[in-house]
Amino acid sequence: MIIMNLQGFLRGGKLMELKALLEVIQVQRHDFMNHLQVISGLVQMNKPDRVRDYIREVSREIECLGKIIHLKVPEATAAFLVAHNEAAKEQIELAYRLQCNLAHCTIPGPEIGYALEEAFSRAIGYLASCGSPERRLEVHLQESQQRYTFRLVFSVPAGCAVVAAGDKMTGVHEKLAAYGGKAGLVMGQSEGEIFLVLPRRASELVQSGT
Amino acid sequence: MIIMNLQGFLRGGKLMELKALLEVIQVQRHDFMNHLQVISGLVQMNKPDRVRDYIREVSREIECLGKIIHLKVPEATAAFLVAHNEAAKEQIELAYRLQCNLAHCTIPGPEIGYALEEAFSRAIGYLASCGSPERRLEVHLQESQQRYTFRLVFSVPAGCAVVAAGDKMTGVHEKLAAYGGKAGLVMGQSEGEIFLVLPRRASELVQSGT
Repeated sequence: MIIMNLQGFLRGGKLMELKALLEVIQVQRHDFMNHLQVISGLVQMNKPDRVRDYIREVSREIECLGKIIHLKVPEATAAFLVAHNEAAKEQIELAYRLQCNLAHCTIPGPEIGYALEEAFSRAIGYLASCGSPERRLEVHLQESQQRYTFRLVFSVPAGCAVVAAGDKMTGVHEKLAAYGGKAGLVMGQSEGEIFLVLPRRASELVQSGT
Repeated sequence: MIIMNLQGFLRGGKLMELKALLEVIQVQRHDFMNHLQVISGLVQMNKPDRVRDYIREVSREIECLGKIIHLKVPEATAAFLVAHNEAAKEQIELAYRLQCNLAHCTIPGPEIGYALEEAFSRAIGYLASCGSPERRLEVHLQESQQRYTFRLVFSVPAGCAVVAAGDKMTGVHEKLAAYGGKAGLVMGQSEGEIFLVLPRRASELVQSGT
């Protein structure tokens, strides 16, 4: 029997903005068409080595998204996917270091999604506007026995720290604090960091990256 | 400035079920990876002609989804994408004949999405359970000056007409009728059809497929 889930419009709490996700699907499709054209061209030019290299590179990119897709909180997956898209629009590269899947997070999915969106939105907005030559965002997700730590790390050009430091993620922090979590922004001399701390259900810690 | 749309959770009316759309993204990604592996294999085997044929075939499949992506009603796009996925799970082939983009439909998006989901769900459910050897669904979308006509056409094996005829899409029809639309199911000797009639704003009729 098939299950058409779409009628459960509001099941699972709040839902993501439909258009943003459709855009992810559209961009994914568009990128793949481009890749096929490049491969087709290289085959035509009889460059099997370059075809292999190209496919290897594209596969690596697509695999990167695998860890996002397999996060256990749908709202988190959606927030990551949309952020990936938004970053690409601003020519910002995301470097993922995802070491867990949020399976045991005790904060409700919609709140996790909201906090991630806010964090990504600020970091991407900052990088897009600060004029840093290094348009790169490190995305860390780690777990310990008691908590998950999500961190966005970016470089800060001289003189730009003050602008961003004005916003300390207080709104997000207040929301997460109600569930025992935290959020914040730390601006150093050359590096900035936005972080979320999300409590984790006490259970066996499985060190896995999937 | 970037626009993170995700916080407008409920903008644009009701929203689709997040998980179903994430599954579309996941399946799309998975299919791409498979295609790349096949291409890689063919390149390794030094079969440039077969690479070209394969890429042509895959491109055609992906282009098919282009018309779905470019429908002007996000809820309709989502319903089509999810139906595409559900049909694939049941080894049902969808043959698209989409000749318009719903840009001037006067029914609210969430109602259009609901009606399409119901129509697809019934047709796919019927084909999955009736034991027809022909697992194929024709998907028609046409426009005239006053209305859009959406039709799902499928073959009906002997003796199976009665089962499906029990459900005449009355619930959907009642919803659409409030906006001047219609829905119904017609079972013939060898063919069945589920249809929706959706009113269209009086304006220039542009014959375009995009």
